[in-house]
Amino acid sequence: MEKALEYALRHQEEFISQMEDLLRIPSVSTDPAHKQDVIDAADWLVSHFKGLGFETAEAIPTEGHPIVFAEMAVDPALPTVLVYGHYDVQPPDPLELWDSPPFEPVRKGNLIYARGAADDKGQVFMHLKAVEAYLKTGTALPVNLKYMIEGEEENGSTHLPGFIKANEERLAADVVLVSDTALFGPGVPSITYGLRGLAYVEVTLTGPDRDLHSGIYGGAIENPVNALARLIAGLHDEHHRVTIPGFYDNVIDLTPEEREGLGALPFDAAEWARDVGVDHMTTEAGYTALEGATARPTLDCNGIWGGYTGEGAKTVLPSKASVKISCRLVPNQTPEEITEKIRLYFERHTPKSMKLSFRDLHGGYGVLVDTKSPAMSSAQDAMEAVYGMKPFFVRGGGSIPVVADFKKLLGLDTVLMGFGLDSDAIHSPNESFGIDRFQEGIQSIIRFLKLYGAS
Amino acid sequence: MEKALEYALRHQEEFISQMEDLLRIPSVSTDPAHKQDVIDAADWLVSHFKGLGFETAEAIPTEGHPIVFAEMAVDPALPTVLVYGHYDVQPPDPLELWDSPPFEPVRKGNLIYARGAADDKGQVFMHLKAVEAYLKTGTALPVNLKYMIEGEEENGSTHLPGFIKANEERLAADVVLVSDTALFGPGVPSITYGLRGLAYVEVTLTGPDRDLHSGIYGGAIENPVNALARLIAGLHDEHHRVTIPGFYDNVIDLTPEEREGLGALPFDAAEWARDVGVDHMTTEAGYTALEGATARPTLDCNGIWGGYTGEGAKTVLPSKASVKISCRLVPNQTPEEITEKIRLYFERHTPKSMKLSFRDLHGGYGVLVDTKSPAMSSAQDAMEAVYGMKPFFVRGGGSIPVVADFKKLLGLDTVLMGFGLDSDAIHSPNESFGIDRFQEGIQSIIRFLKLYGAS
Repeated sequence: MEKALEYALRHQEEFISQMEDLLRIPSVSTDPAHKQDVIDAADWLVSHFKGLGFETAEAIPTEGHPIVFAEMAVDPALPTVLVYGHYDVQPPDPLELWDSPPFEPVRKGNLIYARGAADDKGQVFMHLKAVEAYLKTGTALPVNLKYMIEGEEENGSTHLPGFIKANEERLAADVVLVSDTALFGPGVPSITYGLRGLAYVEVTLTGPDRDLHSGIYGGAIENPVNALARLIAGLHDEHHRVTIPGFYDNVIDLTPEEREGLGALPFDAAEWARDVGVDHMTTEAGYTALEGATARPTLDCNGIWGGYTGEGAKTVLPSKASVKISCRLVPNQTPEEITEKIRLYFERHTPKSMKLSFRDLHGGYGVLVDTKSPAMSSAQDAMEAVYGMKPFFVRGGGSIPVVADFKKLLGLDTVLMGFGLDSDAIHSPNESFGIDRFQEGIQSIIRFLKLYGAS
Repeated sequence: MEKALEYALRHQEEFISQMEDLLRIPSVSTDPAHKQDVIDAADWLVSHFKGLGFETAEAIPTEGHPIVFAEMAVDPALPTVLVYGHYDVQPPDPLELWDSPPFEPVRKGNLIYARGAADDKGQVFMHLKAVEAYLKTGTALPVNLKYMIEGEEENGSTHLPGFIKANEERLAADVVLVSDTALFGPGVPSITYGLRGLAYVEVTLTGPDRDLHSGIYGGAIENPVNALARLIAGLHDEHHRVTIPGFYDNVIDLTPEEREGLGALPFDAAEWARDVGVDHMTTEAGYTALEGATARPTLDCNGIWGGYTGEGAKTVLPSKASVKISCRLVPNQTPEEITEKIRLYFERHTPKSMKLSFRDLHGGYGVLVDTKSPAMSSAQDAMEAVYGMKPFFVRGGGSIPVVADFKKLLGLDTVLMGFGLDSDAIHSPNESFGIDRFQEGIQSIIRFLKLYGAS
């Protein structure tokens, strides 16, 4: 294994340059205009796997974007690790806030700037380079390896559950390994044992059947923008708690032990706030900022629009107003339940003079993983060897719905060993990934495979 | 005068075709991209005046768009009428809702569809054709005539008050005549004796300094879209009254006589609602729909935007959210006072973790005109002769701020004799004007000039 670790260090420059090729492909899965780019990214990965000597590597078509599957079976007696990741990326908007074009990777010191650098192309690519390090140095692979890399993670992973169901045998494994989460902080390793789920909806209120002159109708026609604002305002109380009836019914609250563990983390809420330009965090009453951001359910407006939004003053009484709303969920809330509760809230409160249109955009389940399994121990030990300190067990505030699917459909636990940082600005302009963490990730994966193979 | 009336009837087809040339010029005053088009519209009018035999006709440059001034002095002993109108138009957005391109006039039966057809190019053009009818038939003009036609009415008439102040003598007159309002209904003439003012602002709340991943920060960072919605919701109470402290302090309420007059109008609120696709009107408690839309102050959101508004689900916690808000004002509210009160409201309620940006976009004063003056009587009689019924005195819900300026700066009352209809859809897609009303307008103006000259 030492040879593999050294190989990865020696070939870092080459690895980075290959990763940049992948980052240049604008594989925005939510935007139909980028359909071919998404296919190109899948094909790029397949051809890279083949270049590493994989006999089984293909881009499998779905009703949506293709799923890349690759496999290297060495010995049925060895455990099998299924690596999951995604090669699609978030839309780059708002474009004008990027310092360099999102799909032209730029290196500045330790950082590589590009959409997808950290989420998740860079982290997926670490897994390809870790196995390359074994293969090119003639080091025996300590596990059987399968890779399933999808192209719809940023678009609700719509076709993934169906694919998993239809391919149970092909995907059979002992554990799932995912790098799509973050370190707790620079140089502070962590393993994520909890993830939040998601319920994402779009709501439109329509009043008059066209935009009206506010001088003719203002004062006699209820305004959809004002009405929508009122409905949104009613979603929270003054304690920053969600007021939708039954919203918290199924929430598993933090245990005293978990709160103690989270409280012991080297976390400075004031600094975290400063990093994003606000002077303090604002959290549901009774919880710390870290708890609020990782272990409590939320409701946020993701976007709002209606009426005249151009330059200057147009005196229009808008015909309609729309909002995208998403909730981060925690076990045992379900996206179906919460989506339905949001729908009922809007149905109940839509003014009688307006029509409500409600779209369920997507959802996913939250998850909590047993921290005491052999795979979790191997991950802990691998990262401790790389970072010189035991990783913290943390909860992640984001959603990787497929982790719940792996449990439900394949009976598999997932090890979330991620190397991002909050400062990577994923989903924001100027997303980046650190070259140091790219290397630490490869080293950790090489070690994990060895430790888990022997466990 | 009979010859002039006949001339107008005989030349209607030619008049309409000329008006279509004017409607083809996309003189959108709020959009810098249309700067040259606005100039072209001004030049078109000047050249048309010259073609009618006006020696004084020019497009006078301002810091903004030019003001067209034309004059025909016949006898210092006769009264002077100053005609005011505007040749600029509202933006045509949303373009996709037009059945035909907004700047390619289309005739369907009695209606001409184009942006500006009713507001105000078509109505301005009636005045040019009325004087043409006198001039081309050798009928002696019964008054001296001045025309001031501006290009910034839809953009706050920013440079008009300064122009009026600087040109007091040039604009000296006995009364102002304006056609930029509507008939009470088809075939039901009316004269507007009250107009509402306007205060128009734009508010932006900024939280984090960039869009954030709602999975990382959701639950710990206050969301500008949710916060803005809460602030907007707080602007009204459940009785549809504006809650801003002091908002109603200076309102002159309707007199019992006025309420009786408005109550006697042939007005069907239910039908009015149906016409715009809603099942009922919604008005400040204690007032009828007509009162609410014409004689009571309002607060409406004209547009709102923030975060991700494209297709699909982007799990972003937005950095900022913005809203355009305008209030229709009634005497004696002032735009300065109301703008300041809105500003104070937002300052007081902006969350501590956010920054407030507040822009005053524009404003104008409401107005009430004495219904007993000689000019008002002449207008009443002129319209009665054309329509066969005495016009109603009504209040208009829109804003023509310059009417207050005429009073304040020139000491002049304004006669608002308009020929639009609510169904003209001004400021909306598929704006139109009726050829019948275009002719009725010309006939009424010809008669008004005669009656007023003799009064």
